[in-house]
Amino acid sequence: MSSEVPSDNDEVGATLWLPRKASMPAHVVCPKMADHTAASTIAIARHELQESWQGGQVTLRLVSEGSDNDGYHIKYKVADHSAVVSARRPLGLLYGTYALLRWQETKEGNDRDTTWTSAPALQRRMLNHWDNPDGSVERGYAGKSIWKWEQITKNGMTDSLRQRLTIYARANASVGINAMVVNNVNASPKMVTRPYLEKLKVIADLLRPYGIQVWLSINFGSPLALHETKTADPLDAAVQRWWQRKAREIYKLIPDFGGFLVKANSEGQPGPGDYHRSHADGANMLADALKPYGSTVIWRSFVYGANHKGEDRVMQAVSEFKPMDGLFHDNVILQSKNGPLDFQPREPYAPIFDNMTKTPQMAELQITQEYTGQSLHLVYLAPMWKEFFSYVDPVARGLKGIAGVANTGDDTNWCGHPFSQSNWYAFGRLAWDPSLTSEQIAHEWLLQTFGRGDSVTVAALEDMMLSSREACVDYMMPLGLHHIFAFDHHYGPQPDGYKAEYPLEWCPVYYHKADKQGLGFDRTVATGSGATAQYREPYRSLYENVKTCPEQYLLWFHHVAWDYRLANGRTLWQSLCDHYDAGVRRVAAYRVLWQSPAVRNYVDKVQWQQVDKLLATQLDNARQWQHTCLDYFNGFRSY
Amino acid sequence: MSSEVPSDNDEVGATLWLPRKASMPAHVVCPKMADHTAASTIAIARHELQESWQGGQVTLRLVSEGSDNDGYHIKYKVADHSAVVSARRPLGLLYGTYALLRWQETKEGNDRDTTWTSAPALQRRMLNHWDNPDGSVERGYAGKSIWKWEQITKNGMTDSLRQRLTIYARANASVGINAMVVNNVNASPKMVTRPYLEKLKVIADLLRPYGIQVWLSINFGSPLALHETKTADPLDAAVQRWWQRKAREIYKLIPDFGGFLVKANSEGQPGPGDYHRSHADGANMLADALKPYGSTVIWRSFVYGANHKGEDRVMQAVSEFKPMDGLFHDNVILQSKNGPLDFQPREPYAPIFDNMTKTPQMAELQITQEYTGQSLHLVYLAPMWKEFFSYVDPVARGLKGIAGVANTGDDTNWCGHPFSQSNWYAFGRLAWDPSLTSEQIAHEWLLQTFGRGDSVTVAALEDMMLSSREACVDYMMPLGLHHIFAFDHHYGPQPDGYKAEYPLEWCPVYYHKADKQGLGFDRTVATGSGATAQYREPYRSLYENVKTCPEQYLLWFHHVAWDYRLANGRTLWQSLCDHYDAGVRRVAAYRVLWQSPAVRNYVDKVQWQQVDKLLATQLDNARQWQHTCLDYFNGFRSY
Repeated sequence: MSSEVPSDNDEVGATLWLPRKASMPAHVVCPKMADHTAASTIAIARHELQESWQGGQVTLRLVSEGSDNDGYHIKYKVADHSAVVSARRPLGLLYGTYALLRWQETKEGNDRDTTWTSAPALQRRMLNHWDNPDGSVERGYAGKSIWKWEQITKNGMTDSLRQRLTIYARANASVGINAMVVNNVNASPKMVTRPYLEKLKVIADLLRPYGIQVWLSINFGSPLALHETKTADPLDAAVQRWWQRKAREIYKLIPDFGGFLVKANSEGQPGPGDYHRSHADGANMLADALKPYGSTVIWRSFVYGANHKGEDRVMQAVSEFKPMDGLFHDNVILQSKNGPLDFQPREPYAPIFDNMTKTPQMAELQITQEYTGQSLHLVYLAPMWKEFFSYVDPVARGLKGIAGVANTGDDTNWCGHPFSQSNWYAFGRLAWDPSLTSEQIAHEWLLQTFGRGDSVTVAALEDMMLSSREACVDYMMPLGLHHIFAFDHHYGPQPDGYKAEYPLEWCPVYYHKADKQGLGFDRTVATGSGATAQYREPYRSLYENVKTCPEQYLLWFHHVAWDYRLANGRTLWQSLCDHYDAGVRRVAAYRVLWQSPAVRNYVDKVQWQQVDKLLATQLDNARQWQHTCLDYFNGFRSY
Repeated sequence: MSSEVPSDNDEVGATLWLPRKASMPAHVVCPKMADHTAASTIAIARHELQESWQGGQVTLRLVSEGSDNDGYHIKYKVADHSAVVSARRPLGLLYGTYALLRWQETKEGNDRDTTWTSAPALQRRMLNHWDNPDGSVERGYAGKSIWKWEQITKNGMTDSLRQRLTIYARANASVGINAMVVNNVNASPKMVTRPYLEKLKVIADLLRPYGIQVWLSINFGSPLALHETKTADPLDAAVQRWWQRKAREIYKLIPDFGGFLVKANSEGQPGPGDYHRSHADGANMLADALKPYGSTVIWRSFVYGANHKGEDRVMQAVSEFKPMDGLFHDNVILQSKNGPLDFQPREPYAPIFDNMTKTPQMAELQITQEYTGQSLHLVYLAPMWKEFFSYVDPVARGLKGIAGVANTGDDTNWCGHPFSQSNWYAFGRLAWDPSLTSEQIAHEWLLQTFGRGDSVTVAALEDMMLSSREACVDYMMPLGLHHIFAFDHHYGPQPDGYKAEYPLEWCPVYYHKADKQGLGFDRTVATGSGATAQYREPYRSLYENVKTCPEQYLLWFHHVAWDYRLANGRTLWQSLCDHYDAGVRRVAAYRVLWQSPAVRNYVDKVQWQQVDKLLATQLDNARQWQHTCLDYFNGFRSY
């Protein structure tokens, strides 16, 4: 809060939502541990409390009862402001420590004796970094990669990097993130070479006490690309041996290494299909190499254009993988994006979650805002993820975890847009507890980031955050329009996008299918691609019928006449105009709201200025979306 | 706009959205008319243009072609900024004049030669004043009645009243309102006595050139109450003769008198039922008395508790009137509220519009904010009325008109809350053209009321207006809760409301039906009152099934278990909490937005202060609704 903690301008936003320093060191009682990692974890917890706890004594206590995972129990006594955090594991104590400090920053009203228990709903709460060894970040909008490989040797890393990565580790641990794929799914074979593995070990050593496991994205063709085998065929014995050796090498360096994430035969990546082998063949070969270490292959289902050319792109994952259900070894997890296309601002859920009953699955969410204004638009994504959970309940479906494509970079504030930090925060909180509401998380984040402030101001900013995703949908892809983004960078609109040299399914015209009659992609069984058939009931029937299809998915599933009347009596064309208008109007409201004295007083001055400028850009962009798309579509109507 | 027109603080808001004075008088060419009314109408048009038109010459032209009603045609030439307004009737020229001035205040971008035509979609565009002769106003929240009966004699009215009523007449004409019932539907018999009729003639003379017809609400028992007959039985010959004489007397004074509006056998009002006659008997008797003058009886269907005691109140209008469909004489119009209950912030449409195929109908909307925060809450009602139109299209259904219960009073600014003026404005605009959007109307109103201003600021205020009705629903009656307002005044919450001495259907507990199991009024055919059966398909089936019932009507049609999960996976109880939260949060955002410098600079200073205070009250009230209702309902859950 600007009034309490004058910020050093060079470092604004650098410490994220982490707890503020207290004026006096707190008294902390904690167990002594022989094990090095356990001792380190507990030392971190103690240190966090000493620095930031403003109450009486805190006791960290390892217990033998309680949940058999990384959960914690907290007991706070108002009489002496003391607290007891108990857990079965040291990491549970660390999670409980952060929970206690979060509670301190966000609790409401008069204190009273309070106890609560929490345990993670999902086993794997994972960031996927799309960082390349050259320091670039695919779909990264906050500077270069946070991994400064050149600042790491097998013996350690520079102090400045260690300092920075320590904040990273604390931030992740504070929200319960426990796994991290360091590199891009479009993976360089370099990443599995000795020099990088030795650097990875140094990172792993730093992250370990925070409970964060390191993983690697691997290039399926690595042994071939590194000229160590003559093929990458998964059924080739030399290839299998190569991966077995590689696994052994990795585990020797990093005994708790997480496993491999694989993008194969997708968008130009090598894979088992290059040798007429199936995804199952490929995944199982790698899984077998990892099996001795009890670890896992995560195989991405984001695959299209290879074996199902010409088929509606959103159907291809199910077409490809459903026949393999049951063929994967038990340490393979299939990872799928929340929607069947590609991280649009709104998609119906990916029906692969309905179609694979024997294969363990994970969901992949995108924290980095590839299609949602990147680091220039204020778009709080928790409502989007909650919407997905309403169709695919991660707990009820037994998902093995949730991955989020990271939005971090070497910008001072990590994420570019000050509010983009909230998406990283929200991802972690939801992976721990998918039943939290978007509002609760926004509230927590605001109070920890900017301070308690006046409750009306905080509520107003919550309102802004909570409505921002729908505003983005309104000005980018109303009524289920999708993938009309500019080529390659996916930032602005390009509804007329068509390039003969590109796959058709990269081209906006393929998706909106505007013509004289109307707009939208007919995916019905009756007259279209038949994608609705991949959904479970009641969605299959609801989506198939234009009258019952939720309007937010209308143009996703139907080609609709320009003068078709929606439920409110407005034509399709009028409704498009209405939605673009609504999106622009809402961003205008943010812009004016942001300049209110109450907001200026609440938010750190530097961050206030950053956001003020960014909202101006967002408003310009929203208008550009409106004009570009309406001008373009209007051309079809007035043939 | 504050920067251009320094306002006289005593009169802020008094001239409503009427056109500003131009710096130079405009040159107006217009036809000379022999007829007194026509000449007056054209003189008004000329005067408005002379005062406020900022372009070149304006020609008002009567033509013989064109639409056969009060429409107009406008042709603007950018070369000399001249305009021609043509119409078949003088009143069309006046409407065209206001349209031209509205266009001047609101047009966008570079001018070009422009022509357009407009004609009213509905014949009767009517205000219903609920004003009593003693100066009180039922459900009035802006001071006393605008009719100062004591300032009117048969020879005229005071200058101050004339001044004030002239603004009233201009404001109505500027949005096309052409009919006006001066008095409360709970009508005093006094209103049809000679002294009041003579005063009414004076009002009618003032309003006539503005195209506004006067009407009266009549007390069905008038002849009896005035001791001029021994009964009010509509089949009694003496009663019939009395009304015939009364009609003759009125038409002699006011040859273009509109007709009678009648509330009979409803909430204690006398009616034909007192003599075991039907509504048709009563309406037809009055209709016959008016027939010689070509005029009309408007009979209200808002009737319950008499012949259908014990039946679900929302069903009684159809039960009562459907059997009479076809029995009414052809100059009777049935007038029904938009919803089947009583002007709640959200109601499903009134199914009487589906059930009477032979009887001409009108819709009654409530401009005065009886159940929407009165004159203390900013709630822009156009979206509510548009929602009703999406079920009952006034044009397609052939409605004979739309009535709006007026929100005017003798407060300087007419409506109490500065933004309540926008509801009067929007009512008139929608009655003229129901296809206008809520956004267009908000935009017009803002620009005419506060000036052009900065487009971002205007968009932000539009966003506030457009979202305000949903915010009100969120904090007053989420998910279809209804009629849990405090007794009598209907301002705040009273969910525990029960009074043995009141009819049960006035009591909140009758409507929410909270119990240990859940919440809501079961109106299904399967297990409840069966009200869903009064709806046409597909609504009948949609509403009957809890799974397909739109969530906004959930508790209107269903008794739902506390732990029932809504589409987003949240339980009923959680969703209630979410909606109350969302409503409060949105009002908090208005409060902060309003204090932004851009808004302060845009809005007149006095009005800014008024709204600023009112938003503080609205926020307090929203929180009170939240806490009162959630505390109360929570008691049932935790039995």
